[in-house]
Amino acid sequence: MESLHQHPFVPEPAIRRLPWYLACVQRLRAQGVEYVSSTAISNQLNVDASQIAKDLSYLNIKGKTRIGYEVAELESGLNDFLGFHQCHYAVMMGVGSLGRALMADSGLSRYGLDIVAGFDVNPDVVGTEIGGIPVYDISELKERRAALGAEIAIIAVPVEKVAEVADMCVDAGIKALWNFTPFHIKTSPEITIQNTSIYAHLAVMYNRMEQR
Amino acid sequence: MESLHQHPFVPEPAIRRLPWYLACVQRLRAQGVEYVSSTAISNQLNVDASQIAKDLSYLNIKGKTRIGYEVAELESGLNDFLGFHQCHYAVMMGVGSLGRALMADSGLSRYGLDIVAGFDVNPDVVGTEIGGIPVYDISELKERRAALGAEIAIIAVPVEKVAEVADMCVDAGIKALWNFTPFHIKTSPEITIQNTSIYAHLAVMYNRMEQR
Repeated sequence: MESLHQHPFVPEPAIRRLPWYLACVQRLRAQGVEYVSSTAISNQLNVDASQIAKDLSYLNIKGKTRIGYEVAELESGLNDFLGFHQCHYAVMMGVGSLGRALMADSGLSRYGLDIVAGFDVNPDVVGTEIGGIPVYDISELKERRAALGAEIAIIAVPVEKVAEVADMCVDAGIKALWNFTPFHIKTSPEITIQNTSIYAHLAVMYNRMEQR
Repeated sequence: MESLHQHPFVPEPAIRRLPWYLACVQRLRAQGVEYVSSTAISNQLNVDASQIAKDLSYLNIKGKTRIGYEVAELESGLNDFLGFHQCHYAVMMGVGSLGRALMADSGLSRYGLDIVAGFDVNPDVVGTEIGGIPVYDISELKERRAALGAEIAIIAVPVEKVAEVADMCVDAGIKALWNFTPFHIKTSPEITIQNTSIYAHLAVMYNRMEQR
């Protein structure tokens, strides 16, 4: 992945908070607000003002005394840092219920993710298009990957196939796996793995509801 | 929410690992394996065998010396504890791209979540059905919530509407909010909030890719 400048190192908990700040300033800009203090952001979120100031200082964004942050500048600084304004190409591995749903979610493109192809083994879906995105046989991944420009693979195959599909992706030149399955992928350390186990989140939510 | 027995307290990091073990034992059962050791599970996942044994002991599941865990028993114990075999009714707040995708994802019902209605303000979708699930005007939430039996609201509305919609849900008697937006919801402490900010995960993944 090319970038115009090297990003500063930011700890993961801070990175996870940055989209909250972005959501907050997008809302303020829509309301016509020009400047915002970390205290005002703090009042809208559940985060200390000093933590907000520290998180933003990683991005070299600093507020002005008594004025605060310029909303438009803060919004574009956050979008730039978070990579939501860049285009990242991805392939969808597994075009079942969840895979199909993610391909149809145009919201992802607003956050810089462009799904350019789906791959599956099911002859009923191979050769079709979902939301204008073609679905190919999974055996074609390696020959098509580079031409598609995809460095990210979204994994939404059945649990028993995840290990094999992850290996195929790495072999085809994929650099990052966005894993939506509950299976814990083991691969080489140079591959980025992001687990978004929505079913694990469900389990945590059910458990908390029972504890109350 | 009623349950036949009080669940033991399990720390959240352990709860998050349990679905990995479940995915692993489901795969083993499909392969006809009857017994598995924590060492064998450890070899498939990136988790220490001693951690696995500790996590499972919270559920009062103990392996037998030299034999290990009975696969079928482990699978049903995990499913029971995780609540994936119970039926939890939910409403979808916001039937845009992501909301529509989640309503169409039949995979959620396999994990105990049954979306029984959608709510939106858009006259083009109100009155329609998505995957057989009716969509109502958001103003009808309070009068319909109890009859629907829904205690969970999935939030997928635009960022600037999240705070207002969360308040409406709580006012209508919702007990848990599953928040898919990047907005950080503040509400009363007796409401369970589960954030699944898939866009924040994207940001973390982009950032890690750049750092390599």
